[in-house]
Amino acid sequence: MTSSTRKLNLNVGINTTGYLPNAWKYRTGSRHDINDPGYYRGLTELAHRGLFDAVFFSDHPALMTDPKGRPFHTIDPLILCTALAAQVPDIGFVATMSSTYNSPYNLARRTQSTDIMSGGRLIINIVSSFNPSVAANFGSAPLPPRSERYARAWEFLDVTKKLWSSWDPARDGQIPEDQFWDASSAHAIDHAGEYFSVKGPLNVPLGPQGHPVLAQAGASEGGIDLAARHGEIIYCNILSRPAGQAFGKKVRDRAVAFGRDPSGIRIVPGLVVILGDSREEALRKHELFSGAGSEDGLLARFIKEHNIDPEGFDPDAVLDAERFIPNPNRIQAVGMGLGLSDLLTHERLTARQAVRRAEGNHRLVLGTAEEVADAIIDLWADGTVDGYTLQPPRAPDDIQEFIDKVIPILQDRGVYRTRYEERTVRERYRLPYPF
Amino acid sequence: MTSSTRKLNLNVGINTTGYLPNAWKYRTGSRHDINDPGYYRGLTELAHRGLFDAVFFSDHPALMTDPKGRPFHTIDPLILCTALAAQVPDIGFVATMSSTYNSPYNLARRTQSTDIMSGGRLIINIVSSFNPSVAANFGSAPLPPRSERYARAWEFLDVTKKLWSSWDPARDGQIPEDQFWDASSAHAIDHAGEYFSVKGPLNVPLGPQGHPVLAQAGASEGGIDLAARHGEIIYCNILSRPAGQAFGKKVRDRAVAFGRDPSGIRIVPGLVVILGDSREEALRKHELFSGAGSEDGLLARFIKEHNIDPEGFDPDAVLDAERFIPNPNRIQAVGMGLGLSDLLTHERLTARQAVRRAEGNHRLVLGTAEEVADAIIDLWADGTVDGYTLQPPRAPDDIQEFIDKVIPILQDRGVYRTRYEERTVRERYRLPYPF
Repeated sequence: MTSSTRKLNLNVGINTTGYLPNAWKYRTGSRHDINDPGYYRGLTELAHRGLFDAVFFSDHPALMTDPKGRPFHTIDPLILCTALAAQVPDIGFVATMSSTYNSPYNLARRTQSTDIMSGGRLIINIVSSFNPSVAANFGSAPLPPRSERYARAWEFLDVTKKLWSSWDPARDGQIPEDQFWDASSAHAIDHAGEYFSVKGPLNVPLGPQGHPVLAQAGASEGGIDLAARHGEIIYCNILSRPAGQAFGKKVRDRAVAFGRDPSGIRIVPGLVVILGDSREEALRKHELFSGAGSEDGLLARFIKEHNIDPEGFDPDAVLDAERFIPNPNRIQAVGMGLGLSDLLTHERLTARQAVRRAEGNHRLVLGTAEEVADAIIDLWADGTVDGYTLQPPRAPDDIQEFIDKVIPILQDRGVYRTRYEERTVRERYRLPYPF
Repeated sequence: MTSSTRKLNLNVGINTTGYLPNAWKYRTGSRHDINDPGYYRGLTELAHRGLFDAVFFSDHPALMTDPKGRPFHTIDPLILCTALAAQVPDIGFVATMSSTYNSPYNLARRTQSTDIMSGGRLIINIVSSFNPSVAANFGSAPLPPRSERYARAWEFLDVTKKLWSSWDPARDGQIPEDQFWDASSAHAIDHAGEYFSVKGPLNVPLGPQGHPVLAQAGASEGGIDLAARHGEIIYCNILSRPAGQAFGKKVRDRAVAFGRDPSGIRIVPGLVVILGDSREEALRKHELFSGAGSEDGLLARFIKEHNIDPEGFDPDAVLDAERFIPNPNRIQAVGMGLGLSDLLTHERLTARQAVRRAEGNHRLVLGTAEEVADAIIDLWADGTVDGYTLQPPRAPDDIQEFIDKVIPILQDRGVYRTRYEERTVRERYRLPYPF
């Protein structure tokens, strides 16, 4: 079932209006799209035409009520993926969910249920939640500290894996004629740990993939531990080859330290693509979609974001990497801020150059379709990455454009599929069967 | 949108192999059906041909590991309903879920998501969970006492309703051109009660039904309080006209006492139908499907279930209702045991008669298709009930048979629809819009 040649893996994020907060002004569609089932079905069918591995939904269980912003997380991702999988064949689904605000039994059951209903097309992206406005929807206790959230996430996934394998009809022995089933194919897990006490067994059996594929997105130290221990697909922000190689080595080395075979890890960072008929046109679209308006606007945003004193700041001077290491005490996903400091550690860049290398914390690739395809293949060919999670500035427009212009080049170069072959996303990612 | 003549409402339960534990021996299909998505799709399409209001899934989040039994609750009901609604049009879905082992924010979000994805076809049946094997899957604390579970369920639904109405795009004012949305259409709920503290708003807006239709199944005093306060569809066990009228009056009177308009309550009890070409044939099928084997077997089971001393027991003596009031301290759903004592309070019956009046705690109707149709219409015509939730002994066989033989009679009598008309289940049940 598993294809023998290595192919580029590509996911595509389809949250509400697209990845970039300000790009909605230039998109096709109405503002009512964001809660319209037909809109998400259309995006998924579009991604299916592009032969993507999976559509990706990030999530926070809270409404961001900034009047200048836009709702980015609305319909529950697992519900959305379950409905869409029933309507669109082949393509996989990445649903983000919180280990801090779910119970392992419910999460194990629901996700295995969706994996069964979709015929093995579910990837779950477990996050520990970092936002106080999420915490306030789940009680009066403040958000636990990051170290506790990661310790909990670690045990959460340990328990969840035990539950996923607790009922395996393949263990059936001889079943007498007057009995419906072999109850010994299910066993209690009797987990009693620091955070969870769960008896089991799960009342859903092993699914088509054993269990859903596990994505992991954190890049803080706790996040890397979790990725090394449990992650099969690593969603991260990698802005250059050396940064990517260093990150990949770190995760794989740590997997080995945990006694895990690192060959079962795929690195599929975020990627923002902005296409133009010329590089100049792409640069202007970047200025527009980012909301900065011009190159000076991009520089002004950079200065503001990094609390730089604008007085005497030289946008053409080489930046000091140390200056950009994110404060681990800031209320945000720490890993998201690491990309820039990692980039500057490995490349000498000015602010004018740096603002064109990342957008929304992810690698930004600007230019013609040929230039974009080259840049995508570049880090994939030597194994720095296994593919990308495309984060289109606008949905549906930039997904459509990528499919029309970049996918055919990737196919011509022989690095991207021309039809869906494998049945499950696990097979499509050449990941080992877990049990 | 709402049909002007009152019609019989019919749901059908489609859990695993059918409602009666021993009837699987006589069903069509394989034991692997119970975790097969195609099987549930087939059952839902079958129910759609029968023009049922909704398919119903009861649930416990635990695997019952009795080797002599069969798994009755496997794939998560909300996931199953979400996938099936994406595949089968028109028909509604009743998903059972626990207020004891979910958080209001997650449940409000997921259910509203499914209601949006299905175009307004979700009914949720909130239960407080009574089984210690469920509790053990959610921590080391024992099951809370019933009174606490009901107090929690009451507040749970209060919070959930606040969340469901916390973001209403219909409240949009004028939106400036450079803004995506009117953030004032969403408001925090700032709930701080005895069991829950939830800030809100929900990140999913009002759905096609305002919120999913609320079913309520408890018949204990706490359950009736909850039904009177929050229930729109009451799923219960009513074995006779006077018992049904007394129950309906109790729920409606209590709704009035809570300041609620009782016209928004529908009573749709469980019903087990066993058809034969003659009443004799139906009696034999009852003995077979129940697992009792014979009328003597049914009487022996009755004696055992009710801890009666078999010595000198006369199956043809009139039973004493008092003797059959369920012990409220027993570990079971108390309401399920009330049907028999209610029946015996209103009718003088012998054990030989009583064993033919209920199966699996629900009203049993035995006989030819004409007799069954008569019995169904009988309690509906005068408003004792609004319809029934059919619990077929075997799935798919007894659903198919009911559709082939009983539905056409109900249609001929003009009490049952001949096609789907209303868009949402709320309209189909003639229930008021909640907000």
